[in-house]
Amino acid sequence: MKIASIEAVPFSIPLRNPTGFAHASISAADHVLVRVRTDDGLVGQAEAPARPFTYGESQQSIVTAIDEWFSPAMVGLDPLAREVARDRMSWLVHNHTARGAVDMAVWDVIGQALGQPVHRLLGGYADAMSVVHILFASSPEGMVDEANEMRERYGFGTFKIKTGKDPKVDAAAVRTLRAELGDDVELYIDSNKGWSADQAIALLPVMEEAGISMLEEPTPALEPLGRRRLAARTSIPILGDESVTRMGDIATQILDDHSQMISIKTARTGFSESERIVGMCEGLGVGLAMGSQMDGMVGTLGTLAFGAAFKSTSERAGELDYFLQLTDDILAEPLVIADGKMAVLDRPGVGIEIDEDKLAHYRVDK
Amino acid sequence: MKIASIEAVPFSIPLRNPTGFAHASISAADHVLVRVRTDDGLVGQAEAPARPFTYGESQQSIVTAIDEWFSPAMVGLDPLAREVARDRMSWLVHNHTARGAVDMAVWDVIGQALGQPVHRLLGGYADAMSVVHILFASSPEGMVDEANEMRERYGFGTFKIKTGKDPKVDAAAVRTLRAELGDDVELYIDSNKGWSADQAIALLPVMEEAGISMLEEPTPALEPLGRRRLAARTSIPILGDESVTRMGDIATQILDDHSQMISIKTARTGFSESERIVGMCEGLGVGLAMGSQMDGMVGTLGTLAFGAAFKSTSERAGELDYFLQLTDDILAEPLVIADGKMAVLDRPGVGIEIDEDKLAHYRVDK
Repeated sequence: MKIASIEAVPFSIPLRNPTGFAHASISAADHVLVRVRTDDGLVGQAEAPARPFTYGESQQSIVTAIDEWFSPAMVGLDPLAREVARDRMSWLVHNHTARGAVDMAVWDVIGQALGQPVHRLLGGYADAMSVVHILFASSPEGMVDEANEMRERYGFGTFKIKTGKDPKVDAAAVRTLRAELGDDVELYIDSNKGWSADQAIALLPVMEEAGISMLEEPTPALEPLGRRRLAARTSIPILGDESVTRMGDIATQILDDHSQMISIKTARTGFSESERIVGMCEGLGVGLAMGSQMDGMVGTLGTLAFGAAFKSTSERAGELDYFLQLTDDILAEPLVIADGKMAVLDRPGVGIEIDEDKLAHYRVDK
Repeated sequence: MKIASIEAVPFSIPLRNPTGFAHASISAADHVLVRVRTDDGLVGQAEAPARPFTYGESQQSIVTAIDEWFSPAMVGLDPLAREVARDRMSWLVHNHTARGAVDMAVWDVIGQALGQPVHRLLGGYADAMSVVHILFASSPEGMVDEANEMRERYGFGTFKIKTGKDPKVDAAAVRTLRAELGDDVELYIDSNKGWSADQAIALLPVMEEAGISMLEEPTPALEPLGRRRLAARTSIPILGDESVTRMGDIATQILDDHSQMISIKTARTGFSESERIVGMCEGLGVGLAMGSQMDGMVGTLGTLAFGAAFKSTSERAGELDYFLQLTDDILAEPLVIADGKMAVLDRPGVGIEIDEDKLAHYRVDK
């Protein structure tokens, strides 16, 4: 069995609401469907989300990376020769989600060829993951309504509060949510680097009082002194995300104590690299969480397949619900969240089946 | 498919010569063959070497650990649920080679069930590994003769010098070997913790002059100040072995800069844990080498299957030749070293086939 081709299909699906966060606002999921085909007819798939504000990629750059670099390097390889592929592409800098998607698509092929779900090949720890709901409402009252509705409808027990724009609003949101939702839900915040160190430090009493479980990217990681001041003043672990896109960055963040937990996003580190991150973090004694790259359903299945495989990634709720923000999706069978959980699919590979009509409708390269 | 039973068969094979090293001398390979059987008739195998001077295990303790703890915990599990097995056995302290063998035997089952060699499942980087010859002669002249003979016969390009008993002899050995073998062979030393820090430091000029590539366990790792003094005075990386039997130990050694490279021994960390070590060391930027636990051929196939899978482990010669020190072996088809390399077996699983007559002859529990 050999890789015959790697195809990249850019597609865009409108979001229900423009997603605003600390730095930008987007109104559509501009993603790329990556397809790895073998000479015996298998097709492995994955979703690369273009996130210029995080990785500097565009749909065009992802397509180019795959057409110009990944495809020529990997056509003719046995999909199981993952380490050869990794070595051949080690020269390329950045292009994170292009690389992650190619790796996940190759694993999808491997799983199908071996007749096993990827989550079992990776370790088979759990049959489901608890799911975080990321709150997108902009006012504290809006967030409470949203949280109650989502708890009612899907059984969520963990909520992520998007913060980092206005510390006063952020403080009110944290206080109000804890007061209204009670002590049994887990709450954590994600500032997408939006606070200064002083703003973050000033908010610590509110967050500690409210029992916030993690501070995700509270301040810019590229402002190391600010991170150091903040980390020194709180017991709430800082969850590294944008600051830990590469393994070396993870190591440095951990060694410098600027992140005390690490968010793994399969969109950027696929499965092969993510597995190394698990090894490193478990070895060093650092907690892990499965993060969302604002994935559609296809990307979400990648996160689920990986997160469910290990104890260290599945014992914490994963960010698996962003797809609810899309008005539609290219996955043929919608994902289900029930009782606050998403169950793994018991199918070979990652279990992705595309609705070809929808892909034809939403693709932007026609 | 479910695990139906785990069996432990102790066997002993005499060595050609008593193996003396810094602390002890042994005259037989006292090992345990571990067999994981599934309900559909597959048998996964691995070799656990009893190394009381390293892990405190005996053949009896290995058998007991498997009969009393591993077997009851794992019977009924899907072999692919590796992370569940790992979690179930996480309470048990030490018992390193019992644990490593069970993990490798499970991977052997997985490979057979999926119809793929384990080295491909783990990443498929290389088809062969370069092999280190461990020099056992006790005099410098004896070592030169042995090295020349082994180079002639098997094509070895890397030799490990056992040191740590008498610094004068060690210095003479290092000088003589470099002088007689020339600059093109790789030479490294292993003191099995036999030198004091002062002795090691005093020998540094000789070793640096001779271009020794690694210092394996030069001084006792449990004497941290000695390691720190030594590490501060040389550019030759210290290769951690006995000091890095557990992941947390690896992390500590690396963070304290007491080991600059890590020896992975599948006898103690199997494949699942060894894979995590690869992640941690690659992430932190620490070199890896595949070490020997004085394995027979069965254990050697485990080391080979793992080491060949990754670039970081296969780009350095691995310690795959200790089996030459045994007068016999239970593997049906002898391993081959040619041109200084050992090729992977292109068979599902680890590729182990036992000569049942030999096992019957050498087993010690009859």
